[in-house]
Amino acid sequence: MPERVTIYRAAWVLPVATEPVRDGAVMVGTDGRIAAVGPRAAIEPPDGAEIVELGDAALLPGLVNVHAHPELALFRGALEDLRFRDWILRLVGTKRAALEDGDYDVAARWTMVECLRAGMTTLAATESSAASVGALKEAGMRGVVYREVFGPDPRVCDESMADLRMAVDRLRGEETELVRIGISPHAPYTVSDALFAAAGRYALDERLPIAIHAGESIPERELVTRGEGDFAPGLRAREIATPPRGRTTVEMLDRLGVLAARPLLIHCVLLEFDDVVRLVDNDCAVAHCPVANAKLGHGIAPYPELREAGVRVGLGTDSVGSNNRLDLLEEARIASLLHRGRLASYDFLSPADLLRLVTIDGARALGMEERIGTLEPGKDADLCAVSLAAPHVRPVHDPVAALFHAARGTDVVMTAVRGRVLYRDGRVLTLDEAALGEAMEEPARRVREALA
Amino acid sequence: MPERVTIYRAAWVLPVATEPVRDGAVMVGTDGRIAAVGPRAAIEPPDGAEIVELGDAALLPGLVNVHAHPELALFRGALEDLRFRDWILRLVGTKRAALEDGDYDVAARWTMVECLRAGMTTLAATESSAASVGALKEAGMRGVVYREVFGPDPRVCDESMADLRMAVDRLRGEETELVRIGISPHAPYTVSDALFAAAGRYALDERLPIAIHAGESIPERELVTRGEGDFAPGLRAREIATPPRGRTTVEMLDRLGVLAARPLLIHCVLLEFDDVVRLVDNDCAVAHCPVANAKLGHGIAPYPELREAGVRVGLGTDSVGSNNRLDLLEEARIASLLHRGRLASYDFLSPADLLRLVTIDGARALGMEERIGTLEPGKDADLCAVSLAAPHVRPVHDPVAALFHAARGTDVVMTAVRGRVLYRDGRVLTLDEAALGEAMEEPARRVREALA
Repeated sequence: MPERVTIYRAAWVLPVATEPVRDGAVMVGTDGRIAAVGPRAAIEPPDGAEIVELGDAALLPGLVNVHAHPELALFRGALEDLRFRDWILRLVGTKRAALEDGDYDVAARWTMVECLRAGMTTLAATESSAASVGALKEAGMRGVVYREVFGPDPRVCDESMADLRMAVDRLRGEETELVRIGISPHAPYTVSDALFAAAGRYALDERLPIAIHAGESIPERELVTRGEGDFAPGLRAREIATPPRGRTTVEMLDRLGVLAARPLLIHCVLLEFDDVVRLVDNDCAVAHCPVANAKLGHGIAPYPELREAGVRVGLGTDSVGSNNRLDLLEEARIASLLHRGRLASYDFLSPADLLRLVTIDGARALGMEERIGTLEPGKDADLCAVSLAAPHVRPVHDPVAALFHAARGTDVVMTAVRGRVLYRDGRVLTLDEAALGEAMEEPARRVREALA
Repeated sequence: MPERVTIYRAAWVLPVATEPVRDGAVMVGTDGRIAAVGPRAAIEPPDGAEIVELGDAALLPGLVNVHAHPELALFRGALEDLRFRDWILRLVGTKRAALEDGDYDVAARWTMVECLRAGMTTLAATESSAASVGALKEAGMRGVVYREVFGPDPRVCDESMADLRMAVDRLRGEETELVRIGISPHAPYTVSDALFAAAGRYALDERLPIAIHAGESIPERELVTRGEGDFAPGLRAREIATPPRGRTTVEMLDRLGVLAARPLLIHCVLLEFDDVVRLVDNDCAVAHCPVANAKLGHGIAPYPELREAGVRVGLGTDSVGSNNRLDLLEEARIASLLHRGRLASYDFLSPADLLRLVTIDGARALGMEERIGTLEPGKDADLCAVSLAAPHVRPVHDPVAALFHAARGTDVVMTAVRGRVLYRDGRVLTLDEAALGEAMEEPARRVREALA
């Protein structure tokens, strides 16, 4: 929390809830909440208030990344141009062969460095290690950490659930007002029907946030609908039956009772029309990860259609093993390009739409819209400021167009969570970037060797 | 030209013609040509040679941008989310109402600042003002400036051609070894059949490079194929007949004899199969501008298909009025994402393919492959160096994947043309960036006012 009332002033304030304010200001109280938003002239500094002049910048709500795997920071650019099954097998194999818990701690913290540098204040992390719990707390960021559970073999369902419950019990002791624990039964090709059903019940009973990779790829669809495709032979080799499990992944999850837990469904590239109806009826959320989906060759998710149907959709970067960047401004820009290209249409996904997507829409997808996502009095002061002064941004005719189509994550000059400044002018204030960079080198070498 | 033999050393040298070289070096002679490429240990510095240590960076051929409108730098972010006809009418109207020649000179020089900062050494400029001739020369860059000619009314064909010839005669006096003059009959909705035919003959007779916007949009196709669509009423209001002019734009250009001049066809989003055959048969080149095409809602050009067919295709940013960036590394990344998304496939447009696309493929599209596009002894030393040390790039497992999927234009640390360093560590050495930035402000205000 800030020690003093602070007033942030910038050439543009973008409250999201209302129109952009030229020469704007945001006043933040010592409770870390927004006290006032408006033109700078209208916000009188109280005695002893600190004034932070951000200059030729846009000040906006902190960016909300609804899907990432911070523990995978070491895999950036390590797994290019692979068939999806091979991509995932090599990823999992390398994790097992070359990495241990301490490496995930370093990787997750490095991810937080990158997030803070790029203006992200809230991160939804999906992880086997749950290393992000400590990393988010140290960084001072907000987030949900979905502890992953795997188990395609129904015979190990009880064992997997016991392990999950133990991990969650331990992790919940670590929860803070900013960092929440959830669960993630990983995906249809790594989780049995029994485990999906048990995890769904557990989430409902314990009111745990739950996230699932769903509708991502053709091999997943082939496994679910026909019991065939790239993933089937490996499962059968482990004496795991591969019957058809549903008309689609979403239909299967509905049948297993999982949709009742209002999961965050990650990807949703391959959806049928009635899947969208099920998402709406169950108030499920979707994590749209356009770059990872395109780069891995899965396709383009029907985001405009989901939004039109009223589904809560936020934007996620996925891991640097697939993306390979953590830049939500750029992710939003590329989303708009993919959808405009796909649909050959210009009159949607405007800069103002993209601004909502990376702020309030992300907050809604994570159920945090009461606390964050817009600059409004009473909400937590999760902020980011993006310079509009770089040569590649000038001239600025419209600050929101400049933000998404000219600026980029590296133009962020300040990131703050609940009024606490975590990044400013090239320096992460809560983590030791240099030490983490050095600590990455040895495990990165191990990853390279394991993949060679 | 460099005064001394210079050896550039970097963690990675990417010659394009051969595999990446770890701890590599490039030796450049006083003639501005590459004398040697290889591991640093293998390149012995001659007496008096200058050694430039680029450190943790990739050194590669300078990037080749095959389509831009440098004179339009003032329009970045000024024309968002408009129907194409309105976009172009507002652009042209604002040019007429608010800008004059001196403004284009400033804008073109600002574009060169951005290009040098982002590693571009060669630029193909399409312009009504031809301001880029002076701008390229001052910047020290390589390029072709296609002087635009307009005239949808066949009755003014002779007048338009006379004006074009006069402009070209004057501009050819300005040509240097690095900067060439060409012509650009703009597009089917602004150029009559008669003017296309005359410009094509002129290009053939005078061996002038020629570039044409072709197959960009549905309104263009509707005008060409049916004499209808968004552009037709405006033409008819000017008493210009709008008969059907061809089965496609490419077929029309073939019928008019223009393809014989081996034009650079800009965009080619909408192509029929036999268009591709015509492009191959006539050895035409294509400028692929994926971001502008997607952002304006035109769609996704069939670049993988064109490449497969053997068409020479380079990558262009188009203007900041549509893109809104000048970043060829990012443009290549987004190209790969658009095509992988569109075709739901992962095994093409690898980082190595993208590296060729922005270097040798661009050089081939402009007919410059003998001089530039790879690092090989005897070729001109057009170079760029991209830092691989930024937090968003680490760890680096593969320098080419890091270059396209993690680094970005703002990570460029050096740009050189024919051995002459034009940009280094944040400073453009040939243009006064601060003065240009200031000079942009007043005309930018005029643009805003004209558009308000």
